[in-house]
This record gives sequence, structure tokens and C-alpha cells, in this order.
Amino acid sequence: MTASLQCLALLLSFYSCQGLQFNYIEEETEFLNINSKYGSLWPLPQKVNFSDVSLKLSGVSFRIVDAKESSAGASCGLLQNAYRRYFDYIFGGAKKQWPVKGRRTGDSELQELQVWITAPESDCDSYPTVFSNESYELTVAQSVAVLKAPKVWGALHGLETFSQLVYKDEFGSRNINVTTVSDFPRFAHRGILLDTSRHFLPLKVILANLETMAMNKFNVFHWHIVDDPSFPYLSKTFPQLSQKGAYHPYTHVYTPADVKMIIEFARLRGIRVIPEFDTPGHTRSWGRGQPDLLTPCYSGSSPSGTFGPVNPIVNTTYDFMAQFFKEISSVFPDAYVHLGGDEVDFTCWKSNPDIQAFMKQQGFGGDFTKLESFYIQRLLDIVGQTNKGYMIWQEVFDNGVKIKPDTVVHVWMGSGQKEEMQKVTAAGYTTILSAPWYLDYISYAQDWQKYYNVEPLNFDGTDKQKELVIGGEACLWGEYVDGTNLTPRLWPRASAVAERLWSDKDVTNINDAYNRLSLHRCRMVERGIPAEPLFTSYCPHEYKGI
Amino acid sequence: MTASLQCLALLLSFYSCQGLQFNYIEEETEFLNINSKYGSLWPLPQKVNFSDVSLKLSGVSFRIVDAKESSAGASCGLLQNAYRRYFDYIFGGAKKQWPVKGRRTGDSELQELQVWITAPESDCDSYPTVFSNESYELTVAQSVAVLKAPKVWGALHGLETFSQLVYKDEFGSRNINVTTVSDFPRFAHRGILLDTSRHFLPLKVILANLETMAMNKFNVFHWHIVDDPSFPYLSKTFPQLSQKGAYHPYTHVYTPADVKMIIEFARLRGIRVIPEFDTPGHTRSWGRGQPDLLTPCYSGSSPSGTFGPVNPIVNTTYDFMAQFFKEISSVFPDAYVHLGGDEVDFTCWKSNPDIQAFMKQQGFGGDFTKLESFYIQRLLDIVGQTNKGYMIWQEVFDNGVKIKPDTVVHVWMGSGQKEEMQKVTAAGYTTILSAPWYLDYISYAQDWQKYYNVEPLNFDGTDKQKELVIGGEACLWGEYVDGTNLTPRLWPRASAVAERLWSDKDVTNINDAYNRLSLHRCRMVERGIPAEPLFTSYCPHEYKGI
Repeated sequence: MTASLQCLALLLSFYSCQGLQFNYIEEETEFLNINSKYGSLWPLPQKVNFSDVSLKLSGVSFRIVDAKESSAGASCGLLQNAYRRYFDYIFGGAKKQWPVKGRRTGDSELQELQVWITAPESDCDSYPTVFSNESYELTVAQSVAVLKAPKVWGALHGLETFSQLVYKDEFGSRNINVTTVSDFPRFAHRGILLDTSRHFLPLKVILANLETMAMNKFNVFHWHIVDDPSFPYLSKTFPQLSQKGAYHPYTHVYTPADVKMIIEFARLRGIRVIPEFDTPGHTRSWGRGQPDLLTPCYSGSSPSGTFGPVNPIVNTTYDFMAQFFKEISSVFPDAYVHLGGDEVDFTCWKSNPDIQAFMKQQGFGGDFTKLESFYIQRLLDIVGQTNKGYMIWQEVFDNGVKIKPDTVVHVWMGSGQKEEMQKVTAAGYTTILSAPWYLDYISYAQDWQKYYNVEPLNFDGTDKQKELVIGGEACLWGEYVDGTNLTPRLWPRASAVAERLWSDKDVTNINDAYNRLSLHRCRMVERGIPAEPLFTSYCPHEYKGI
Repeated sequence: MTASLQCLALLLSFYSCQGLQFNYIEEETEFLNINSKYGSLWPLPQKVNFSDVSLKLSGVSFRIVDAKESSAGASCGLLQNAYRRYFDYIFGGAKKQWPVKGRRTGDSELQELQVWITAPESDCDSYPTVFSNESYELTVAQSVAVLKAPKVWGALHGLETFSQLVYKDEFGSRNINVTTVSDFPRFAHRGILLDTSRHFLPLKVILANLETMAMNKFNVFHWHIVDDPSFPYLSKTFPQLSQKGAYHPYTHVYTPADVKMIIEFARLRGIRVIPEFDTPGHTRSWGRGQPDLLTPCYSGSSPSGTFGPVNPIVNTTYDFMAQFFKEISSVFPDAYVHLGGDEVDFTCWKSNPDIQAFMKQQGFGGDFTKLESFYIQRLLDIVGQTNKGYMIWQEVFDNGVKIKPDTVVHVWMGSGQKEEMQKVTAAGYTTILSAPWYLDYISYAQDWQKYYNVEPLNFDGTDKQKELVIGGEACLWGEYVDGTNLTPRLWPRASAVAERLWSDKDVTNINDAYNRLSLHRCRMVERGIPAEPLFTSYCPHEYKGI
């Protein structure tokens, strides 16, 4: 997307200062308020064929069952759990349903959904990876619907799609039309970044958002877990990190049990959990529990009492990191950790005479990016030994640090984003895009359209380069959000990113998107998620919280 | 405030498009994070004197009681209700408290708060008005605190202040310091506008926000109840208005019982409810249930099937309005109704041949503001006969309509706001300000500061003119808010307006405000209100919803 597009919404609010303030801005975006032929499907599947034939679903007799041929059966907890979840989504409004005696099954009734995992290995007990097959085929026909997927991951997405196809008629009956869907994601990495350092997010807020991610077919929870303001991760190896570095050592931490629960809750929804432990900058909170870890800043010739980035010139730093990331690599099952590496402020390093001496000794001259790279290089080597891959913010690549071939470079800077994508992929690295999707930046009116209009592959590069773009992430940095406002601020704005990362490149009709997304947002509300409105409108069932 | 100040926040986000995007904007506003000497008081009372002597409050034995001399006693439901509410706010966290046997009252304990209504007429069973005395004096001394107020309205504010003075020590004990407070509002009209037409707001959302208004000493709920998109007000005289004009005639309407409950809930908190029925524009939803009310628009020489503003040239319009506002004047006890009168679009009137003929007959030429004024004039005369005063948006004044001397002119246009304030007050009318406080306009970072920095009397005019500025309103128009996001979007941003309208003109220290408001927002959260964070921070008790 062009910079001018990106700025449009801001410019509009900017102009309102200059005398164009409206009491009501009804006319701002006058979409045709007609139902999409795709109903409420979101994100739009790759291929959908509807017929006009509708089938009824009975809350008493409808069943979601394992297909006989399925490689995952009753012992697959992930699927059994998902069947119950989706049954509840579909029939949730009608809790007490008693069989009507002598009722005869009508002709136009859908009696069951058979879920058929076709590959010999269902992945039922595995963790999802960037290579996981997420495709599925759904056939809704007279009496029986069949959901075929090579792996459980596709089945989860297919269940969500199935639930989105069910609609209530005016009498409250659940209906679904005879339909076939053939679906797979355009990008393999579709993430949400949440930041639990600037504000602590209670467990239930994280779980609710994982639940909503599944409704939007997101598959990566990028957990920016610690940062300058607080260190809520309770480390088994270094418990003093959260003991001293959390906002509160009991009420504002994630215990090992919490972390396990989040990882399993996510796995059951096909979501990877990638933790970020950002160093050497953004580490103020680390220093409280690990006093020698950070660089002492100097004021003139004596220490000022304040601390800067991780101290890169002492061996204790690397001993600590080795032990710490050994723990992280065993606590978090995903094949990747995010190592950060962004925005290192050199002021403190520059002030410290030991650092100055080290720079001279190493022949770095006055170039502190060399010191930064020196640190990162050693860190990457350490983490590399834990058999984890790593993700890093773009600066690490920009500074020429030697990174493993399977490294994921995370592009976040709004300026020069296309050139960066071009450079990273030209160098042969996989990359994900976040620059246009910083959802912490808010503005008046419908900014979801701005996110929706992004085309991630819109940069100069060969087909091979474009293949290296494995996806993107919507980032909701935590300065201005906590449990009070995070959920409605994230949804449905992040849903726009969800469709861009899942659906076909040519799915760009913004009016159609508006109509589907309006229904999708009301569905999220009906499922208990306070997803905010796109514009003047109503939902049949408004949000029940305050 | 100057236009350049008003634009600062927008400009900042604007620049972020041009390459200055940050991954983290921690440094953006680096306030000194020290406790204010005024603790968590918000809005700041006119006079406070603290001492260092602290007294304990026991959840078992502390009582809020009527002073013997009080003109309001046990029969004053408003006060008895408030005592329970504030007792719960103060001791809410500790539900089960059993007396400790043999406990002896310590020396440094506050045993009771006596509430003393000093005027012969307590106003206990009245509705608050713009002339209500809201002052109070609070003396917290050894053993007994006394809250003196001429009327119950001041007592309500004093109870809120008392509850804000109570703090927990590290052992969880409730404490309050020996303190005297002498307080009254700077402006008499301190309002919040909520819009229930663009989105329907469930009853409990409105009640929760009235509750929060009381915590911020707001005293006017400006209920923009109907508008173009929907007509949720269930009229007893014209039930078809909501039957046809609401989003849904059962689930998305305010019944007479709902309206009564809102008015009484507000009254018990010292809040006036001023309904707005905006005409002749913004009335599309009225036309659905009252087909002849709106002007038929023409396309060439035949009706196009669409409708414009209220039809001002037929007697049926005025008959309808007379009956309708007769009902409104009896349903809503406040002395004022808001009649709107803003943003009339002349396109439809221009197209209609009957209107054209009427214009000619009246000698209006091509000046449709004359027709608008013709309508408004008759409407005001009709409403004037119901013994109600009226508020109107500034256009009605600007167009030279003859208005009653007690009319309140509502200034909302951002452009030329100071000149408008000057003109309205020079003409001798009371006025309220909303132009700088359109809270539906959101932007990145701490826009509460922008609202806080407004000085309502900063326009050229005599002292007499300035006295005519009776207050202001924070407006949260409904295009982008409903029950999912309204509450965190309104609070604590509206709290900034609350302090500006209550506290002394010289209370402008933004750093002190930041520290008090941070605590005040955590208090709102602890009371169950999802008030969003100002910035990176935490609350001892985070929000318990999702």
C-alpha cells in the first residue's frame, strides 16, 4: 500500500481541526448494506459453492462425529474438544432441548457432520508448525456433511467454516445450505502480537483472544512477554526475575502452570505460541532480578546508578543467557523463539569506560552497531544450540549479523518497508510483515479498511523472493491497552488482517468485506467477545457485558 | 485552546506515516511518577487541607449515619441508598467480616461519618436542576467525620470525595487522614452526551455509565436518544415510532419503565437527564412510523420515494409535535429538553414543488435557512407551552431564530468556537461548550491531556458574558461505539473534562493530574468499570471482565 493511502484516515481527522468538524459523519463511508453472496464467511475460503437447497439442524439430534475412515478417533482430545466447542457455538442459545416425542426426521435435515482426517498421522497430539497442513474440504449434502482434512489443523478451520455456514431463519431454526468448500491459507504464518509487559494481561484475557484468533483462523500467538516496564514470566531457573521485575510477584505474573495452559489452549485451536524475549535493549525489568546483567551507565567518570542494555562484554551475560534460553526452549514447544534485537539505544554503552575499552580492543572504532552485532551473534549461537529456530526484528538483519538460513526476519518499520522486504528476501531469508499492521495506532473511523487494503507481496522481487514471505502479524503493543479495552480494540480490526493473510490475493472487494465483516463481528459478539462495531449498525444480540 | 494545540496529537500520528514509526513509544510522555499530594482525588476539590494523622476504618463497626440536626433522615431514600453504595465502594473487597470478640476501639479510629443536610429543604425527593446547590464541607477528625451540605446533591459529592480519601495500607487496613474539604463546582452544567440511535445501548451500559459519571461528579446525562438510524424511544402516544423506527421493536427499545429507571437511577446520583429529540434534520427514523411527517423528495417532477427533513409547511407536522412533546415534557422531569436543530440538509426541501410554492408565498426567496427558522420558531413556541426550557445546537441561534431568554445554546462547531461563545453570550444567552470535547474522535496516545488543557472561558467577553457559560458536555457520538467498547472509550477520557468543569480554573498542572488520574482510573476499575489505561502501568486489581 502507498504511504498516501496509509495516511488518508489520519489526514481526514487532521482536517477536522481546520474547521471541517462534523456533528455527525454518517456519510463518511456509505457502503451498500446488502448481504454478501458469501453470507458471513470470514476469512473468505479459497473456493465456495453454494446451492439454494437448505437443510435444517436439530439441536437435539445433530451430531459431529469422527468419520469411520478417520485416522483420528475418539481418543483425539483436540477434536473431541473442538466438536463440543463448535456444537455450543452453533446451538448455544438454546440450552435445554428436549426431544419431541414421535418426531420424524424430515427430508431436508442435516443429521451429522463427519470429520475425516485423511493422513495416516493426524497430528492430534502434536504442536502446529509453520509447515502444518491447514487445508480442508467441506461438503454439506442431504443428511450428512463431510469435512475432510489431511491433519487436525485443517479440521479445526473446517469446523469454524461449518459453524459460519449455519444461520438462523426467522423462526430460530438453524439452517445450512448444501455447499462445498475447498480451502487452504494463502500464508502459513498468521499472527497476533500481544504485549504483556507494558500492561499485565490477566490469563482470561489472553485465553479469550486465543479463542477469537481461532474464529479468525489466526495461527500464531506472538507473545511479547517481557520488556522494560515489567517481567511477568516466572522463570524456574531465575525466579528472581519476576520476583523483582514483575509489577507484582504474585498477582502480575505468569506461572509455569499459566504458561502451560496458554500453550495447550492455543494448541487445541491450532495456534502456535512464539514467545519473544527481546534483548539486548528493552530489558530494564530484567536488571532488577539479575543485577549484573545490564550495562552500568556512567555520568562522567562514575556510574550514574542507572542501567542500559544487556552488558555484552562480560561472560556472565552469556552464561546467564545460555541457562535462560535452555529453560525457554523446553517450556515453549514451538520450533521458534523471537529474540527481538530492535531499537538498541547506544547512549549508555557510549558512557561506560569498560565498554569503550572493549570497543577499542575489538577494533570496532566508534561503531556501536558492531558491538550490538557482536552480542546478537553470540546470543544466536547460544540459542541455536537449543535446536530452536529464531525470529528477529529487522535491525538484526540490517546490521549484517550472521543469521541461520531458517531465520524469520520480522519487518516492522513503516519507512522503506518495500525495500526491506526486497532486501530480506533477496538475501534468501523468510520474512513476515507487520509494518502496516500496528493496531496500537488508532484513528477515527474505519481503519480496518487500511489494514485490509495492504498487499503483502507488493514489492519488487522474483517469484522465489515472494515465496519467502510466509505471512504477517497484527501487533497490538501494550502502552494503551489492558484488560479493560484490549479485546474491542483488537477485534474486528485484526479480522481485516486475518482475511488478507488467509484468503486469495484477489479477495479485495471492500464493500463485500464490509458486509461479511459486519456479520462476523456480530457473531463474535454473540460468542461473548466484545468486538467493536465497524459503523452505525446493530446486532440481533448485543454484547451482554458492560 | 488554540487550534494548533488541538491538532498536536493528530500531527504526531500524522508524522508517523512519514517514516517516524516507532516500535515502542515509551518516551512519548515521561511524567514523573510520584504521588500527588492530593492522592487520588478526582476531580480536585476547591479546598483541601490534609494532616499527617491517619485514622483506621473498621469494616465491622464503621457507620455512615444521618447527623441528628440533618433535615434529611432515615426516610430519605436517596441518602440511604448512597450510604450503602459508598460503604460498598470503601469496604467492598472484604465481604465477610465478623466482629472480633473483645476488640477495643483504638484511639486512632474513625467510627462514623455523619451526614448533615443543613438547609430546611433537603431536596431529597426532588430532581436536580441547573440551580441546585452542590456544595459541601467535609471534616474528617478523630473518631467522627462530618459531611455538611445544604442539599442532598452536595452530600452525594461529599460521599464520593470521602470514599476517595480512604486508602488501604500495605496490610489491607482502610485508613483516612484527618482532613478538611470545602468544595463546590466551578460550572453548574457538567454533562455527558450518549447517542442511542446509531447503536442501541443496553440499559445496563447506560446505568454503568451513570454510575461512573457520579464517580466523576458529572451531573447531566444528555440523552441523544433518537436520530436518523433508529428510534428506540417507545412513545406511549405514538408507539408506531419505535415499532417501525427502532432497530428491533422489542429488543432495541427503551420502554417507559426503562426510561423511568434511568431517570431515577440518575436522580439518586444527582444527575439530570436531558433528552434530545433533534428536528427537523436527523429524523429519518421518525418517518418510518409517522409517514406524513417528513418531506417527500422529488426527482424532477415526481416524488423519488425518499424523504428529507420534517415537512415544515403542513399543519399535521405541528399537531404531531405538540402531542409528542406534551408526552416528552411529562415523561422527562428535567426543566429542559434539547431540541437539536443542527445540520439541516436543504437538498430535499429544494426539490419539492410544494415547498417551493410555500417559500414564494412566504417571501423567503431562495433562503432555506428562513424556512428552517420558520419551523424551529413554531416548534419552540409549541415546546414553550409545555413549561419546559430548551437547549438547542448553535445553528438555531446563528440563524437568528427568536429564542426564549432562558435558552441554552450548545456550541459544538470546532471552527470559530471562541467567536461563537462571544456572540452567544453577548446576546445574553446561557451557553455550554462541547466543541473541544468530541470524544468520538480518537487518536493515538494520551488525548485526555488535550481535553484537560481546554479553558472554557478563554474568549473575549465581559465578566457578565463569562458568567453565562454554565458548563460543557463531553460528547460520545455513536457511529463507532456500542456496548462492546463505549465504557473504556469514555473513561477516563471524560474524566479530564470532569475536572475541567468542576475544579478551580488554576488547577492545570498536567503532571499532577496524570498521577491523580492514574489512581482514579484504577479506582474505577476496582469498582467494576472497564476504564482504559492512560499509559504503561498497572492496577493492584486489574479488570475482572474480559
